Amino acid sequence: MRIREFRTDDWERIWPFWRRIVAAGETYAWDPATDEPEARALWTTGAGKRVHVVEDAAGGIVATAYVKPNYAGPADGVANAGFMVDPDHGGHGYGRALAEHVLATAKADGYRAMVFNAVVETNPAVGLWTSLGFTILGTVPDAYDHPRHGRVGLHIMHRAL
Amino acid sequence: MRIREFRTDDWERIWPFWRRIVAAGETYAWDPATDEPEARALWTTGAGKRVHVVEDAAGGIVATAYVKPNYAGPADGVANAGFMVDPDHGGHGYGRALAEHVLATAKADGYRAMVFNAVVETNPAVGLWTSLGFTILGTVPDAYDHPRHGRVGLHIMHRAL
Repeated sequence: MRIREFRTDDWERIWPFWRRIVAAGETYAWDPATDEPEARALWTTGAGKRVHVVEDAAGGIVATAYVKPNYAGPADGVANAGFMVDPDHGGHGYGRALAEHVLATAKADGYRAMVFNAVVETNPAVGLWTSLGFTILGTVPDAYDHPRHGRVGLHIMHRAL
Repeated sequence: MRIREFRTDDWERIWPFWRRIVAAGETYAWDPATDEPEARALWTTGAGKRVHVVEDAAGGIVATAYVKPNYAGPADGVANAGFMVDPDHGGHGYGRALAEHVLATAKADGYRAMVFNAVVETNPAVGLWTSLGFTILGTVPDAYDHPRHGRVGLHIMHRAL
């Protein structure tokens, strides 16, 4: 496994699993029908954003994350991040390794904390974040219409860096 | 007082107090040096956004608010809103009247709840939101660098509609 900075030509290898994850409508508060240009903008552009990718031993891209300021101006010391692991490559620890890399990188970049604004409470990743030191600051009740669980809450999660 | 939909030519009467409020760096998590085109984009554009204004008896614009989806896709039933009252016209109940209008309008538009993502904990508006039925779901600690109070928290506030 190798974790490195995103390059523009990585996107075409991210888009297939990005599309599949968002279309499932179980973990992201984005339109399940988001098209490719909008997806690329959501994931790779914006002020102060850094994007990371994980390559497996074969050189394929199996996971990605972005990090950006969660707020601007007087609150720009708090980061936000998003993570995706290709569902065909789950269970190999790519998500945890990427998360540890992102936390270290964000701290080195000067962020004092990281906040996730909308973690679907049924998402198994909640356990990963908790194991990495994140706490649930609060939960927006009944905010997310899950295809199998009905309306579930969105956690706001936080970790100091 | 009259509360009505924003028209494009209202912006030039909003911008002077918008600039003053954001430049003060006490209540908004935006760059205090935000320029006019960026400010206009932040306040008046974006998917699903509605903007309201309050006219006083003389026809001047004394307050404004936007309402938009706080999330997309499976969570697009939760609204977000932002409010500004011209500091030269405070204490006349414009903020409360606008908030009541916004809550009623958002409900009529089909939103099931409203969330504020980043209410500076020292902002007197916290009392207004609480009196209108909002609760504090959680607080991001030490997130906002306030010019007089130092680092203060950002409340996430919520109200069902």
